[in-house]
Amino acid sequence: MKLITFEGIEGVGKSTQINNILSWLKENGNSVKLLREPGSTDFGEKIRELLLSKDSEIDSHTELLLMFAARAEMINQHLINASEDFILCDRYYHASIAYQGYGRKLSLKLINRLIDDLNCPIPNLTIIYDLDVNEGFMRKSDDVIDRIESAGAEFFSDVRNGYLQLANNRSEVHVIDASRSVDQVTHETKKLIKELL
Amino acid sequence: MKLITFEGIEGVGKSTQINNILSWLKENGNSVKLLREPGSTDFGEKIRELLLSKDSEIDSHTELLLMFAARAEMINQHLINASEDFILCDRYYHASIAYQGYGRKLSLKLINRLIDDLNCPIPNLTIIYDLDVNEGFMRKSDDVIDRIESAGAEFFSDVRNGYLQLANNRSEVHVIDASRSVDQVTHETKKLIKELL
Repeated sequence: MKLITFEGIEGVGKSTQINNILSWLKENGNSVKLLREPGSTDFGEKIRELLLSKDSEIDSHTELLLMFAARAEMINQHLINASEDFILCDRYYHASIAYQGYGRKLSLKLINRLIDDLNCPIPNLTIIYDLDVNEGFMRKSDDVIDRIESAGAEFFSDVRNGYLQLANNRSEVHVIDASRSVDQVTHETKKLIKELL
Repeated sequence: MKLITFEGIEGVGKSTQINNILSWLKENGNSVKLLREPGSTDFGEKIRELLLSKDSEIDSHTELLLMFAARAEMINQHLINASEDFILCDRYYHASIAYQGYGRKLSLKLINRLIDDLNCPIPNLTIIYDLDVNEGFMRKSDDVIDRIESAGAEFFSDVRNGYLQLANNRSEVHVIDASRSVDQVTHETKKLIKELL
């Protein structure tokens, strides 16, 4: 099994790319499972509802802990003993580092300890779609902006910076310039995945 | 404000004692707020439902993280800037150390880091009602045994041991022998609280 995770701030086109890659891998005869964070388990989807609801004004630590609670369930149910050729995951622990660590300024030591203690499998490949924050915002319509997205441009600028730091420090992490056309970005993504094989 | 927390395994008579102390403090003209963990906030009560439901087979780490998520909310809403003379809390972070640390064998380092990073206020007094595990079980009727209680005698023996370790290491923690009569235990509890004043 190869675990590939997809990261990036709002509006970078992550979902489109994941769908393109999912189709491509299946067309080539691979078994593929698609996951998303938070979510992918009954329990995780309940957590997702809590987290993304605009009603709930929750503390940053609460947000972090709920993300990891949902992640622990996803790892147990889907990543341990996985039988698929590929698992594609829409966000993973790199998002906790970027969003809760760099964005919300929570302790990176705490986040890294959670990653270690929960034995989170390291992805074979983590792709960060990188885009100017304002350009990302312009691509999104107002009605899809949820609680997290309403945090503002400075927050997302910190998150973007966090992602780029991760790419400097971790060998599984690769950055793709998401300002180019969908086809070009898909082409770059496939190139990185082919290198895994 | 004085924060008093009440701890102990199932069947030690914690709820009865908390109610006795609540009445006594109020009769003596104090303002008192009663909290319970997990819970005490809208958000925390949702988490409580998830945690105590027999349906949900969740990972030990998930349990730990949900407990701390609910705790973060409770601290923000009720402990920071509290105006009451007393806050009584039915379980607090010592329960995470005893139940998830000693009971479920999760990393005490992780748990202590969470306590520190969430800036959990240290109680002025933490009372552990101590009782032989089998005696505790015998006091409970079957229908109140929830998911956590169904973990078995060995688990509770580890939890009890964890509580006793805490009493050795932390100055806020005091043990009361819960095998005596309700009145005797209440008398001992009041004595400890009077020492706070």
